Amino acid sequence: MKSILITGANRGIGLGIVKQLVSNPSSIEYIFAGYRDVNKSKELLDLAKQHSNVIIPIQIDVSDDESCNKAKIEVENKLGNSRGLNCLLNNAGVNKELKFNDINEKDMLDTYKHNVIGPWRVTKTFLPLVEKAVSGERNVLQASIINVSSGMGSVTLAPTMPFFYFDYQCSKAALDMFTVCFAETLAKSNIYITLLHPGWVQTEMGGAQAPLTIEEACKSIVECINSMKNEHYGKLVDATSGSSCAITPF
Amino acid sequence: MKSILITGANRGIGLGIVKQLVSNPSSIEYIFAGYRDVNKSKELLDLAKQHSNVIIPIQIDVSDDESCNKAKIEVENKLGNSRGLNCLLNNAGVNKELKFNDINEKDMLDTYKHNVIGPWRVTKTFLPLVEKAVSGERNVLQASIINVSSGMGSVTLAPTMPFFYFDYQCSKAALDMFTVCFAETLAKSNIYITLLHPGWVQTEMGGAQAPLTIEEACKSIVECINSMKNEHYGKLVDATSGSSCAITPF
Ligand SMILES: NC(=O)c1ccc[n+]([C@@H]2O[C@H](COP(=O)([O-])OP(=O)(O)OC[C@H]3O[C@@H](n4cnc5c(N)ncnc54)[C@H](OP(=O)(O)O)[C@@H]3O)[C@@H](O)[C@H]2O)c1
Ligand SMILES: NC(=O)c1ccc[n+]([C@@H]2O[C@H](COP(=O)([O-])OP(=O)(O)OC[C@H]3O[C@@H](n4cnc5c(N)ncnc54)[C@H](OP(=O)(O)O)[C@@H]3O)[C@@H](O)[C@H]2O)c1
Repeated sequence: MKSILITGANRGIGLGIVKQLVSNPSSIEYIFAGYRDVNKSKELLDLAKQHSNVIIPIQIDVSDDESCNKAKIEVENKLGNSRGLNCLLNNAGVNKELKFNDINEKDMLDTYKHNVIGPWRVTKTFLPLVEKAVSGERNVLQASIINVSSGMGSVTLAPTMPFFYFDYQCSKAALDMFTVCFAETLAKSNIYITLLHPGWVQTEMGGAQAPLTIEEACKSIVECINSMKNEHYGKLVDATSGSSCAITPF
Repeated sequence: MKSILITGANRGIGLGIVKQLVSNPSSIEYIFAGYRDVNKSKELLDLAKQHSNVIIPIQIDVSDDESCNKAKIEVENKLGNSRGLNCLLNNAGVNKELKFNDINEKDMLDTYKHNVIGPWRVTKTFLPLVEKAVSGERNVLQASIINVSSGMGSVTLAPTMPFFYFDYQCSKAALDMFTVCFAETLAKSNIYITLLHPGWVQTEMGGAQAPLTIEEACKSIVECINSMKNEHYGKLVDATSGSSCAITPF
């Protein structure tokens, strides 16, 4: 993989993946690291200064058309005419943690906008660049779109959870459906499309009680992506148990 | 079952269920038949005139708080102080049939509003009336909330479909998740909560090429509801294959 764009890379899992990628010797040329608000992105921007030839910070708000279009032009300019984008990792997401009695229309829609419509918007914006990277057979490191979902989006697993976040779980179930339908729609394109469950991770969203540190989780995520096989196409892949473990059915 | 509220009962499957219920000798006292627009509801309103002691037309727009609250007061007044509502059937729904290239934020949100937030709104509005109907063990005919979903909302089945309606399928996957989480949340309440797949039916939404007439489908749906067992709680039940066939996992 020579180039990757990661949304929501200023903190949490997104930033952790940037750190993993930059710390490991690999053939990567450009890590396009998405951030939304410069005031919340000091750590990423400092890291990018230290690795200014590899980490390219890209301002991108996944809920905004104009922001996505601007980001696309920046990435395109950097890649130049002849190269495409090898991997788009739709990682940005929100969780308002709405229990049944907290549900309200505004928050339900807002989570859906961020977690479902956001990945769609980024995907359609960057699809031409990922298409340009296709060469030969379907291969995750050559041309891929990976949507970060969650085991909490699985209706099969849901009844086993000790609590319910309605906005988040409905949105991730819908993201899974979006991705499965998208993977089928593009099945002949040789773009690798899949869903990733990162595990339960100590981020702002995951909370301090989560079992995995960001570093542990992101090491697994990078290994998992590197070894994704054809049988994981259009599936929800659990990064914590290695690439061979797709949570199916879900 | 003595009382049922059906949303979207002015046409399609909703109206078909009203016809089935009124044509069969049963103990039913009130069929509260939801309609949105009086100008699109002539057939229902005429039928209600013929059966004015049983069919009570109720104006209810599932996307509108005020409309739901008004409807609740009407239903409550009719039931009187001592009785609850035995069954709430969230049937109203929309499908904008968005293929990948048709996806846009407005339509995606609109379908989510109707198919996910709508059933939630109606549910929380009428929950006190359904709670009032609880008596003894969990029993679908005593106190139930049934959400009409679709096999198209199953991420397991999705890859087998010949085409994809992104807005609709994402919304039904989310409705399934909502209902599963809701069923778990209310597991101790003795309200029966489940999901129903009506089959592919010749309605405006289903189209003329669907295999089932409205009458055939609604006969199965009524039979299916009448024989729902504890093992179908919080599951997606396929009305076409009888109540014993829950589509699991999904
Ligand atoms: N942590 C877990 O245990 C866990 C488990 C399963 C799945 N996941 C998934 O993993 C992904 C990353 O989660 P995390 O734990 O790292 O969460 P996090 O620490 O809360 O970080 C969320 C990231 O998303 C960004 N973001 C939110 N809305 C955005 C928008 N409109 N445009 C651009 N960026 C936006 C945030 O940027 P700002 O700083 O600007 O807000 C932040 O960078 C999410 O999709 C999440 O659902 C996490
Ligand atoms: N037909 C099938 O093959 C099929 C298969 C699987 C699942 N389903 C599900 O079955 C249910 C009924 O579908 P159908 O085939 O009967 O569809 P339909 O013929 O298109 O009828 C839809 C009904 O929903 C009502 N509705 C829509 N938005 C509403 C709102 N905001 N407030 C109140 N009512 C509203 C419509 O009222 P108006 O007349 O005012 O628009 C109409 O009564 C839906 O949930 C659908 O997803 C259908």
